[in-house]
Amino acid sequence: MPVSRDQVVPQSLAPDVNAASCPSRLVLEHVTSRWGVLVLAVLLDGTHRFSELRRAVGGVSEKMLAQTLQTLERDGFVRREAYPVIPPHVDYSLTPLGEEAGRQVWSLARWVESRVPDVMHARDTYDKGKQG
Amino acid sequence: MPVSRDQVVPQSLAPDVNAASCPSRLVLEHVTSRWGVLVLAVLLDGTHRFSELRRAVGGVSEKMLAQTLQTLERDGFVRREAYPVIPPHVDYSLTPLGEEAGRQVWSLARWVESRVPDVMHARDTYDKGKQG
Repeated sequence: MPVSRDQVVPQSLAPDVNAASCPSRLVLEHVTSRWGVLVLAVLLDGTHRFSELRRAVGGVSEKMLAQTLQTLERDGFVRREAYPVIPPHVDYSLTPLGEEAGRQVWSLARWVESRVPDVMHARDTYDKGKQG
Repeated sequence: MPVSRDQVVPQSLAPDVNAASCPSRLVLEHVTSRWGVLVLAVLLDGTHRFSELRRAVGGVSEKMLAQTLQTLERDGFVRREAYPVIPPHVDYSLTPLGEEAGRQVWSLARWVESRVPDVMHARDTYDKGKQG
């Protein structure tokens, strides 16, 4: 039965990243954030301490790494384990949900790395076309 | 043979997204940008006009969509075809390289959508722990 636009139509229950207000969009943005992608992919190979992550992910600041880890922890992707020792020792690892996310972005990162020459070639061609 | 730090050591030829200065990182950022992900995934189902893309990707502004499409075109992911008619008719589609990227991010987007309930649950638990 067709419904009028004035009726309150329940939104689809299925999450949809193309809908501006869907919570899935924010999750996608956390997983694909500049540092989120790299942290998830690095943690896929196992537990790391904060300082190890900071060395592994080139260019990340202490503040951005802490913020990224906290966002990923809150979303349920990263497990944070603090040991009450001096100096403090904090381990980060992926939860089962985080491992799923990690595999996705790991695959994306490896694909991007493998296609860099193609992208460089495309950019050259594009830039020459704009000049000519 | 160990080399001294003062020597000019050629960098590894393999792209590495974890290296801050590697060009692969910028490619990864284009593919995973807020709108880049969504545009690539939408174009995976075929050619679209600008206005169709704008409707499909909820919340994107005209300016951001144009910018995203131009970046993806320059990287060789998107093909832009303008027909000399009035009013202007411009089609966007994926190149073979863009289809590869599209498949990666499509898979990521669908995975995120499927895991939204788990993430919401994790956030509740996290927030309650912080309060308690």
